[in-house]
Amino acid sequence: MDGPSSTHANAGAMTAHPLPPGSTIGIFGGGQLGRMLAVAAARLGLKVRVYSDRPGPACDVAAATTIAPFEDLAAVEAFAGSVDVLTYEFENVPLEAATAAERVRLVYPGPRALGIAQDRLAEKRFIAGLDIPVAPFAAVDNEGDLEAALATLGKPAILKTRRFGYDGKGQVRLIDTEVASALDAIGRVPALLESQVTFAFEISVLAVRAKGGETLCYDIPVNTHRGGILDTSVVPAPLPRAHSDRAKAIASRIAVALDYVGVLAVEMFYLGERAPEPLIVNEIAPRVHNSGHWTIDACTVSQFENHIRAVAGWPLGSVRRHSNARMKNLIGEEVEAWEEFAREPGACLHIYGKDRAQPGRKMGHVTRLEPLSEGEPGAGR
Amino acid sequence: MDGPSSTHANAGAMTAHPLPPGSTIGIFGGGQLGRMLAVAAARLGLKVRVYSDRPGPACDVAAATTIAPFEDLAAVEAFAGSVDVLTYEFENVPLEAATAAERVRLVYPGPRALGIAQDRLAEKRFIAGLDIPVAPFAAVDNEGDLEAALATLGKPAILKTRRFGYDGKGQVRLIDTEVASALDAIGRVPALLESQVTFAFEISVLAVRAKGGETLCYDIPVNTHRGGILDTSVVPAPLPRAHSDRAKAIASRIAVALDYVGVLAVEMFYLGERAPEPLIVNEIAPRVHNSGHWTIDACTVSQFENHIRAVAGWPLGSVRRHSNARMKNLIGEEVEAWEEFAREPGACLHIYGKDRAQPGRKMGHVTRLEPLSEGEPGAGR
Repeated sequence: MDGPSSTHANAGAMTAHPLPPGSTIGIFGGGQLGRMLAVAAARLGLKVRVYSDRPGPACDVAAATTIAPFEDLAAVEAFAGSVDVLTYEFENVPLEAATAAERVRLVYPGPRALGIAQDRLAEKRFIAGLDIPVAPFAAVDNEGDLEAALATLGKPAILKTRRFGYDGKGQVRLIDTEVASALDAIGRVPALLESQVTFAFEISVLAVRAKGGETLCYDIPVNTHRGGILDTSVVPAPLPRAHSDRAKAIASRIAVALDYVGVLAVEMFYLGERAPEPLIVNEIAPRVHNSGHWTIDACTVSQFENHIRAVAGWPLGSVRRHSNARMKNLIGEEVEAWEEFAREPGACLHIYGKDRAQPGRKMGHVTRLEPLSEGEPGAGR
Repeated sequence: MDGPSSTHANAGAMTAHPLPPGSTIGIFGGGQLGRMLAVAAARLGLKVRVYSDRPGPACDVAAATTIAPFEDLAAVEAFAGSVDVLTYEFENVPLEAATAAERVRLVYPGPRALGIAQDRLAEKRFIAGLDIPVAPFAAVDNEGDLEAALATLGKPAILKTRRFGYDGKGQVRLIDTEVASALDAIGRVPALLESQVTFAFEISVLAVRAKGGETLCYDIPVNTHRGGILDTSVVPAPLPRAHSDRAKAIASRIAVALDYVGVLAVEMFYLGERAPEPLIVNEIAPRVHNSGHWTIDACTVSQFENHIRAVAGWPLGSVRRHSNARMKNLIGEEVEAWEEFAREPGACLHIYGKDRAQPGRKMGHVTRLEPLSEGEPGAGR
């Protein structure tokens, strides 16, 4: 390995100065988010090494790749020793791996954010503890818990596994469903029940926080889902200014409370202009996020580059948006129409280089750019 | 090698359809242009293999790299056999290598464009032969030629080597210089003498031509040089619309005449609104060009992606410009101020990951974005 050779904890020595060009960022995870992070790092003259349990889209653009299980802590530690700082592109990196890596090099966002985001119940409690509105919820470990929770929260409600949920997985909606079959559906693992919120639309705030504490938020997209998977993100969301400011303030408050470094995605329900409580936080992701893909083509500096900048201790780049944008995910066979998207004026096409277009698999995305709305100066600094 | 295994000439079989995502582009040259091409290819789900005579910035973002001399034609052919199509990032790829590669796979832009661009005299004759204005010139092989040329063209004039000139190298300006010492200065190699043109400013046209013949031109930047090296490119150039249209028509005519595929850069002198002949072609480069770096951050689809699209037989992407842009090269130690550039609002910073900041070496660039000028809708389709 040609990276730094020390494998002992010298993490503290690296906080004072930004990592200079030529330094190496280690990324846990080899998917499309890692690929876009690697490309963003390359713009800044930073090298990337990828650690993944299988070959993936990030490997083709990384200077080096380690394929090993995350349970192989010796491999994780050796990998950490070969880079200057670490980050991850998915929130289900085993906490043991992140903690082992942190003994060798700094890991951003910190394992605390990772631990909270890996457990939906801990996440809800943490956010509610910041006096930020969330849907009413209750812990569910068995049938008795679930019956009690239903009695309190009413129907419709959603039963969610505490761990390993994404893209709508590990969730079941309770309307007329029986308690026993709902618990069976999620495999009777530790869970929580949440009231189903009636909302106008869903939004997400992409916040980025630097080591020094500076926090910037991108303009807010409105998100639509299909089959539990993000389908489109359109920016700007039709929010009154006071409410977009409030949404950004909520995301920033969460980032500060986590002493966060990097990009944090905060998904929210928007209940409408006249709702007494217009914004309810649904969930957070301690990483770059699919609903921010449009920032690559519509902003001065993308979420991916700003994540790398934060992780490397650099000053944040401008989140200013120069164009309106409509991002559409290409899921499964939707990617087969790539030639049509390639031909479309104003379309920025991104394909992740995955081998098979399985149903539900994110294969690429297309961002359609349009001029800023009348009188809109672009957002952010 | 895991690429296509045939090493025989099946080039013709690949012209009908665009190469699908997952295909592999081979790039001759491992410098920063190759790096930016590789990153652009990754956006489209295309893999990149780099062939270079030394490790360089492109290698860190390529799926695979071959380090071998360009004179090793067996290595060149094996490389060609491992990819689906070939291109290059510098115009001094030995013609023998390009021709050897073309026996195995298609090479774009074609070796004919490469051959013409490698010989300044052939290039001038070719362009003049299209009835496109160039500075008066004459071939110079010895002192007699040079004296005769000076008698015809007058002073000041510039003596240029026919081959291997870039960034102002291989040139000497004749004002009071003696003929013998001028020839000594360029090493008495085959040369040409050119009248020195008095111009208002320098511009370049970045044209991209698809396999089917569709040709698009980016908005035109005005370029400034320092010490013979490009320093800044600012778009839009202050040209009357009729003259920018004319400049684009000239570049397109050259591309058509070369049956060109890919990005072609055409450098021109602009002599001013009232000059009888306002535009004079200085030289062409059969590749993506430093004066088009701003297209990464200011256009829907960059010159790099459009070059890859053309080479892969894809439809061209939109060259529409969403922002005004000022690109500044970071030469030699200028890159040491990277932290300041990183902090600057509106600045897009690019660092090439080269190991040493030698004088005159292109280490990175910064593109400052600004909103479009009043009433400007953005250019191109």
